[in-house]
Amino acid sequence: MEPALRELWAESRDLLGLPSSSLDAAAAAAVPRVDLPPTPLAFLRDHVSPGRPLLVSAAATRHWPAVSLWPTASYLTDALRSTAVSLHLTPDGRADALASHPRRPGGPGPSRCFASAHVRRVDFPTAVRLIRASDPAAGLVAYAQQQDDCLRGEYAAVAGDVDAHVPWASEALGCLPEAVNLWIGNAHSVTSFHKDHYDNIYVVVSGEKHFLLLPPTEHHRLYVREYPAARYVAAEQDSEGEHQLRLKLEMEEPERIVPWSSVDPCPASPEEMAVQASSFPLYFDGPAPMRCTVRAGEMLYLPSMWFHHVSQSPGSNGLTIAVNYWYDMQFDIKYAYFNFLRSLDIDGCSSGKAGALEGDLEEKKD
Amino acid sequence: MEPALRELWAESRDLLGLPSSSLDAAAAAAVPRVDLPPTPLAFLRDHVSPGRPLLVSAAATRHWPAVSLWPTASYLTDALRSTAVSLHLTPDGRADALASHPRRPGGPGPSRCFASAHVRRVDFPTAVRLIRASDPAAGLVAYAQQQDDCLRGEYAAVAGDVDAHVPWASEALGCLPEAVNLWIGNAHSVTSFHKDHYDNIYVVVSGEKHFLLLPPTEHHRLYVREYPAARYVAAEQDSEGEHQLRLKLEMEEPERIVPWSSVDPCPASPEEMAVQASSFPLYFDGPAPMRCTVRAGEMLYLPSMWFHHVSQSPGSNGLTIAVNYWYDMQFDIKYAYFNFLRSLDIDGCSSGKAGALEGDLEEKKD
Repeated sequence: MEPALRELWAESRDLLGLPSSSLDAAAAAAVPRVDLPPTPLAFLRDHVSPGRPLLVSAAATRHWPAVSLWPTASYLTDALRSTAVSLHLTPDGRADALASHPRRPGGPGPSRCFASAHVRRVDFPTAVRLIRASDPAAGLVAYAQQQDDCLRGEYAAVAGDVDAHVPWASEALGCLPEAVNLWIGNAHSVTSFHKDHYDNIYVVVSGEKHFLLLPPTEHHRLYVREYPAARYVAAEQDSEGEHQLRLKLEMEEPERIVPWSSVDPCPASPEEMAVQASSFPLYFDGPAPMRCTVRAGEMLYLPSMWFHHVSQSPGSNGLTIAVNYWYDMQFDIKYAYFNFLRSLDIDGCSSGKAGALEGDLEEKKD
Repeated sequence: MEPALRELWAESRDLLGLPSSSLDAAAAAAVPRVDLPPTPLAFLRDHVSPGRPLLVSAAATRHWPAVSLWPTASYLTDALRSTAVSLHLTPDGRADALASHPRRPGGPGPSRCFASAHVRRVDFPTAVRLIRASDPAAGLVAYAQQQDDCLRGEYAAVAGDVDAHVPWASEALGCLPEAVNLWIGNAHSVTSFHKDHYDNIYVVVSGEKHFLLLPPTEHHRLYVREYPAARYVAAEQDSEGEHQLRLKLEMEEPERIVPWSSVDPCPASPEEMAVQASSFPLYFDGPAPMRCTVRAGEMLYLPSMWFHHVSQSPGSNGLTIAVNYWYDMQFDIKYAYFNFLRSLDIDGCSSGKAGALEGDLEEKKD
């Protein structure tokens, strides 16, 4: 099976114009970049249908008031002074990511779990203060990233500063966005490898976003396994206020299982990298993911079902601000092929529950 | 593996809007039909990208001179009176199809081979006479079906009677047709299951074409195996002329191997049907192919890589006349997935050479 899989990876990379050589930063492919937005027909034909990412220059958003207004420190805090927003809090900036299982060390069961953020409703100026002060060294990282159409919900007061939809994408896809989200964080927030069932137009307004991208065909390289879900909760809160919040991880009750990629492509230490590289050779010994930095004003088309890992750099205002448009994907033959691929059991890379947890244990026993 | 494959078939049928129930004429799905040609964007989004066939009513070709001129018996023979055309001759109407291996019976080796027609250059009025007289009972079936852009080549004198391309398809696909072919036959010519690496717009001008269609995901149901190639040659020719031609099958030298579907969905006798049904259960026990009759003036969009089997009924002029436009397909992730699927070895359904020939022997031994 594995030779057939490697041939699939190589052929799909070849057809996508990606290098198939082994992991090497120099070999990482750039996302195709255009100065002007494509026509709807060219976008559909050359990007949506074949599932090929596209980066559009800042010319696409030059007319957005947000581009000049939002990076200014006071504009958003003024406009949203009395607005309550959902702030996602973690000790390390890794929401919706794998974390050490709180029952550990030494106990039976899986060593890792899938950890969701602690979500607090706070007024927007407090949110910005907490985001700017975010630091894993202090045990608290805040990220405004409610993915529930929040730009048109919590942030409706400033939604008019950006286009309500992306006209060439809406015409190509034949629909309006299902959700428009706002993302505000600093350099310490990282989004782990995952995929979405949406065609995504991701626009950076302040700072930069750094994407690692893998096509859906490379599913098995991400060692998607099933992890028990956990959630950060407030452990205590001292009298000085929320920025002194301490978080602890609690397993969800009743148990909930989440299939998630086991791979961390950017481990914090050489020791962690050594563990990752030996545990997940298909990722670390294989060809490099596509790399793409999206700068302020630029738009990334991220095709549905592509795996993406996202880190970010703040602008001079200390914030990374982005807006994304999720369009309903077309569930077509590509989706059926992907599900077939995913159902195939490759040694250690399947997503079966029992095998996954055993595999996870195995990995830690080594 | 087989359960995963069945799940793929069911899911892709579900997403394509095809029934997944077992073989049953009543359950056969109709191809979506529209009265007016789609816009390029809708065609690309709803048919090309997902790989979904489309039938367009005769309104699409009402402006073609060919629609009124070609069915008239004398028009084409007058216009092409002194034109030499390529006529494909077989004893039974099955060109590019499996036939009994000429070294049989009793000898070693495979029982069947892949037989190509004997091709003769004759003047067009002779071609029409031979096509009209075609009858397996007389041992000779003629089909004008040179697939080398022949409408713009041999038949250039009448190419202006149809559109040079299909405007909405050309705009959607971003190119002009790679080939435009003319097909003239009678009821005895049948095209066996195969696929093309082209997006195809198939237009009937006289008579009807009857398509059986299977999506590329159902590759294994067609038992594609490797067969040695053979060609019909003229065995003798008596003094009365070409219509007395006798054909015999000769193996190609040096040996050439052709992967081809082993399945005949419309065997001539109940005995043949019993052999087919027991040899190829994935086809005969599985869900029905999509069925589509294309009538004079109608256009069928046949997506690239779809398997199709074609039979035909003549118009009142005794001829089935059709034109097809082959557009270069986009080799994208769907193509990579298909090749991956095809590379998977399912019992008896793989296309490996040795296994294929053994499988073929096995089948005949039963």
